[in-house]
Amino acid sequence: VTIRALTFHGKGDVRVESRPDPTPPDQDGAVLRVERAAICGSDLHLYHGDLPVPETGFAVGHEFVGEVVEVGSAVRDFRAGDRVLCAGVIGCGACAPCRGGHVVRCERRQTRVFGMSGALPGGQAEAVAVPGADHALRRIPEGVSVEQAVLLTDILPTAFYGAKGAEIRPGQTVAVIGLGPVGLLAVECAQLFGPARVLAIDRIPERLARAKALGAVPVHADRAAETVQGLTGGVGPDSVIEAVGADATIQLALQLVRVAGVVSVIGVNMNFAFPFPMPLALMKDLTFRIGICPVPELWDELVPLVQAGRLHPENVFTHRLALSEGSEAYRIFDEKRDGVLKVLLDPSR
Amino acid sequence: VTIRALTFHGKGDVRVESRPDPTPPDQDGAVLRVERAAICGSDLHLYHGDLPVPETGFAVGHEFVGEVVEVGSAVRDFRAGDRVLCAGVIGCGACAPCRGGHVVRCERRQTRVFGMSGALPGGQAEAVAVPGADHALRRIPEGVSVEQAVLLTDILPTAFYGAKGAEIRPGQTVAVIGLGPVGLLAVECAQLFGPARVLAIDRIPERLARAKALGAVPVHADRAAETVQGLTGGVGPDSVIEAVGADATIQLALQLVRVAGVVSVIGVNMNFAFPFPMPLALMKDLTFRIGICPVPELWDELVPLVQAGRLHPENVFTHRLALSEGSEAYRIFDEKRDGVLKVLLDPSR
Amino acid sequence: VTIRALTFHGKGDVRVESRPDPTPPDQDGAVLRVERAAICGSDLHLYHGDLPVPETGFAVGHEFVGEVVEVGSAVRDFRAGDRVLCAGVIGCGACAPCRGGHVVRCERRQTRVFGMSGALPGGQAEAVAVPGADHALRRIPEGVSVEQAVLLTDILPTAFYGAKGAEIRPGQTVAVIGLGPVGLLAVECAQLFGPARVLAIDRIPERLARAKALGAVPVHADRAAETVQGLTGGVGPDSVIEAVGADATIQLALQLVRVAGVVSVIGVNMNFAFPFPMPLALMKDLTFRIGICPVPELWDELVPLVQAGRLHPENVFTHRLALSEGSEAYRIFDEKRDGVLKVLLDPSR
Amino acid sequence: VTIRALTFHGKGDVRVESRPDPTPPDQDGAVLRVERAAICGSDLHLYHGDLPVPETGFAVGHEFVGEVVEVGSAVRDFRAGDRVLCAGVIGCGACAPCRGGHVVRCERRQTRVFGMSGALPGGQAEAVAVPGADHALRRIPEGVSVEQAVLLTDILPTAFYGAKGAEIRPGQTVAVIGLGPVGLLAVECAQLFGPARVLAIDRIPERLARAKALGAVPVHADRAAETVQGLTGGVGPDSVIEAVGADATIQLALQLVRVAGVVSVIGVNMNFAFPFPMPLALMKDLTFRIGICPVPELWDELVPLVQAGRLHPENVFTHRLALSEGSEAYRIFDEKRDGVLKVLLDPSR
Repeated sequence: VTIRALTFHGKGDVRVESRPDPTPPDQDGAVLRVERAAICGSDLHLYHGDLPVPETGFAVGHEFVGEVVEVGSAVRDFRAGDRVLCAGVIGCGACAPCRGGHVVRCERRQTRVFGMSGALPGGQAEAVAVPGADHALRRIPEGVSVEQAVLLTDILPTAFYGAKGAEIRPGQTVAVIGLGPVGLLAVECAQLFGPARVLAIDRIPERLARAKALGAVPVHADRAAETVQGLTGGVGPDSVIEAVGADATIQLALQLVRVAGVVSVIGVNMNFAFPFPMPLALMKDLTFRIGICPVPELWDELVPLVQAGRLHPENVFTHRLALSEGSEAYRIFDEKRDGVLKVLLDPSR
Repeated sequence: VTIRALTFHGKGDVRVESRPDPTPPDQDGAVLRVERAAICGSDLHLYHGDLPVPETGFAVGHEFVGEVVEVGSAVRDFRAGDRVLCAGVIGCGACAPCRGGHVVRCERRQTRVFGMSGALPGGQAEAVAVPGADHALRRIPEGVSVEQAVLLTDILPTAFYGAKGAEIRPGQTVAVIGLGPVGLLAVECAQLFGPARVLAIDRIPERLARAKALGAVPVHADRAAETVQGLTGGVGPDSVIEAVGADATIQLALQLVRVAGVVSVIGVNMNFAFPFPMPLALMKDLTFRIGICPVPELWDELVPLVQAGRLHPENVFTHRLALSEGSEAYRIFDEKRDGVLKVLLDPSR
Repeated sequence: VTIRALTFHGKGDVRVESRPDPTPPDQDGAVLRVERAAICGSDLHLYHGDLPVPETGFAVGHEFVGEVVEVGSAVRDFRAGDRVLCAGVIGCGACAPCRGGHVVRCERRQTRVFGMSGALPGGQAEAVAVPGADHALRRIPEGVSVEQAVLLTDILPTAFYGAKGAEIRPGQTVAVIGLGPVGLLAVECAQLFGPARVLAIDRIPERLARAKALGAVPVHADRAAETVQGLTGGVGPDSVIEAVGADATIQLALQLVRVAGVVSVIGVNMNFAFPFPMPLALMKDLTFRIGICPVPELWDELVPLVQAGRLHPENVFTHRLALSEGSEAYRIFDEKRDGVLKVLLDPSR
Repeated sequence: VTIRALTFHGKGDVRVESRPDPTPPDQDGAVLRVERAAICGSDLHLYHGDLPVPETGFAVGHEFVGEVVEVGSAVRDFRAGDRVLCAGVIGCGACAPCRGGHVVRCERRQTRVFGMSGALPGGQAEAVAVPGADHALRRIPEGVSVEQAVLLTDILPTAFYGAKGAEIRPGQTVAVIGLGPVGLLAVECAQLFGPARVLAIDRIPERLARAKALGAVPVHADRAAETVQGLTGGVGPDSVIEAVGADATIQLALQLVRVAGVVSVIGVNMNFAFPFPMPLALMKDLTFRIGICPVPELWDELVPLVQAGRLHPENVFTHRLALSEGSEAYRIFDEKRDGVLKVLLDPSR
């Protein structure tokens, strides 16, 4: 028996192909029939050929939800038929940090992302194998829709993590650079910390309009520095969340932030020699944060907010396509065509 | 020359009387012509005769804003003509904590409230003398209305202080007991910390409706325990803000709060032997907070929130009366007549 | 087959008796052959008849270490032959908080202490049954002695928890009231937070001398208030750790602590109507903490400190007796005879 | 009348010269007769010609204590005859942050260091003018020696700031890179936060021996990475304090620190394009801090620790020379000759 999966074949080349039906990777693992999967900005790093991959042909994607169809003998908390979301980032599942949901701190250094290599095939597919099911999965909570659940696998926790890392306190001003799906969710999450103002920076009018609708002050990227200076009396925002990952936008964050402020980077930057301006940072008394989000660690905080209607992450989905349209979906997302913000794939089609 | 002032003459007896024109109490002091003053719930403790006072006949009131008419020779930051708000609680103004705005920690133990004795006459009057003007006053910030400014002198900071003390984190559930003016502002301030839910407890339908309009879940006080248990799956809210000050409502807070939770008391309770249930607290792993709000310490956080329209404290004013109607104003407020929530007095009338 | 156990038969009556050999209480449980057990101050609450017990005749004691002799079929992390310490306080072992070591927050409300009723017999015995072994036990870490391990089961975490709850920051002054074994360990743990001074209050000269040897300033309880006032320039200590549990000592803590300070109670007080002085607390802007220590949650912090020789909790043991001397051991401990501080029992004798 | 001062004349050239007797720079200023001054590692940046200076000939040095000989008319807290220490970094002294001691956050952007340009001549001189005396100065506290006071002007607060920024919690492992005077004080300050271990990295045997005497584990810089890996089971220290400022040592810090750890840089690095390894930081979930220490903000914490004998910063002084030997003093310090750690100058000689 086989399944259809979106597979990676080198720069700019993802295709729907057949793959063998997955089985639980070990006694702690499970297999999901995928209901929905989304394409993430970090999938584009792979798509652009920016990441070293020893092989090709593996299934891609780390944002997915589905139904458990099979579990290993040692899985305690899940059984066939459970509808679950799966953390895009997982650890060994057995060490103390992993048990507590802190998968990034996995003591066995097995922190991995689905769909980035053949060692852990991804979930933009009809089915996917999940190791350490008891720690990677969570039942889709009552009151959380499938589309919301997909966003709980990665980018909503990531956005929230960026907002937490920014240490926003009530009455402060925070800037968010980049209003793609993660950036817009970061605007929404920043509002949870009671800032007086969220300054939202991008150059795409529709994205600026979305940020404004979320209560932010839209700032056009072409005059970001002057505008932000003006809005903050020359002082700068108390914190900046960077949600692009380009060298230029990280530099902008460092330039904008006020003295004794915080820059929290959730954009993925792969520069091993990013030119960090030390004397500027020194004079700024800077706190600079960058990291992969420990997804499961954040569910307890985020699920009640989604259930209560305080967060509406599902608004970022602009395109809902069939898995069979996967190649085109990547192109649309990569080229930012058609007002695309976030693409959802349906593996049943 | 004389001014009119609302003065205290014993239990239930406040009257408008003439008093000598105030002069700056020392070289660091100032005199304000009062534009607006409000009656506070803690004024009722005096009105009810619950506070020991060595004398009577002094002007009452600690919530007021006005125009500076005279300053002492050593005042640096203010001059005649400045429109200012005045902290209801002040310290010596000279020690390190006072300079930093932490007046409650005054090292000379001179933390005092206006209008509670003849030593520091209050501001429900045409004019009032303010010691330590550089530390007690703040210019009414641009974008802050007179009515908002009055609330910045005491109850908005108090409500915010209670919410901070509750240590609310995003996604949590917080309960607010008592929806008088302070309690309703506590609901508004609690929302700044990103809770999934604010459970607002009172028995007056109009107050419950106001809390609901602020995004809270209204809970009738007559069935508070069962309702809150039900809404929290038997666990209890992560924190409780108590805004009444009665023994029974503080007991309710201790009963409701979840294990490892926080009870933050901003209601004023004068019981020197409040029957604290130690074994319950022990099993709950409790943090219990109670204190006078350090008003000036909180302005930097609150002013931008008011300016940005994130907080609308002015909605608590239901009655706007002339100073000449002061006796009646106290009766209305005390008896909770006419749907009263908060009373504003105009000393020019 | 039977084992010998120290059993409770009513006020002042504990005896060594035979009991059936324990078996694992469930598939997640284990049985330990006890190597050493200690008597805790909270055992005296039982001994004094202060706790309601539906029955008598059960084995007492919640501080013990030993060797695993049998495990249930679902135990993952332990096997026969492992030398382990066991948390004196346990939860269900299955809910999310319990898995993370936060047993006090057990969602199934199964937080229990060994040896306080027949439902969970204690470990002052030759052998003891432990439910939820994977979460209650920890292998005795390399570099930790048996006697240190016994203290990691309860009173060292409790003392550390009290010090954490006191929120001590470098340069501050902290007072510790009561220099029994928990109080002396609290002095030692308080030093981890960099206070300028630890003021240690008791009336037993030998205990004061021990505190002094730990770097504290000894203060005689008979003149605690004046001495502490004098030493702090009339301001009071920034925080107070109460390690007695009597009404009078908790009142002393509230009286001593400075404005905006913290009182952290680790003494066990069973007064359901402790006369809490609200007006005093109000003027003090108080944070008051009281709770049962979540033992396993603290092991990750404490074990490295013991291994590195930063903490020497074993110094509290003054008496090492045979289990057969258990009745006498309780009397010595209860009557504070013979300079007793902490009693260790050897079940092999 | 003139004074003697150590003045800067270009790379490697400092000389004792005569300068006019200083007068208070404004009505808020004061003049000190300097009792002792120290040479700081950051003075070497100037000495090496690494800092842009528009002019030469100004007096150098920002670490000094002395006696007030003259005050401006508006100075409140000091008068002639007071023996004081002076913050090496000052702000405008008038804005809210400056009043609270947070001079780095000066709203008028007047954060400046003494002796780095002719605009604010330094204190390696017989006398020095101090603007904003009420905020820059503090009376030398009782129980603090002159040499300790000199260290309170800059490097002890800096070391403490680095340790605070490292967010050390009890039981953790912290590494300190560089055991010059600031690094050794950072070792001492790190101990205030209760780490299980401080790993102290340098290559000079005498400095490693000093760190060991402070309770640290000495680690030779030539095999730092392997040694630290070995000591931490391959995990890395929870935090790293960098006290050198070289590119290589900052890279080492980033390499050593564990996942979810903190790198706190107190060494001064002037590279505007430091090659920051973003992918490494991303995988490490890094917090990176760098900043100028807000000296006066830290006095309240440090003074009691020095008074209580918990900190002995004066041990870093290895050389006590006359001001007239200033040129030679710089050479010794720069060349790390004669086992030099820190040089104290006596302007009376």
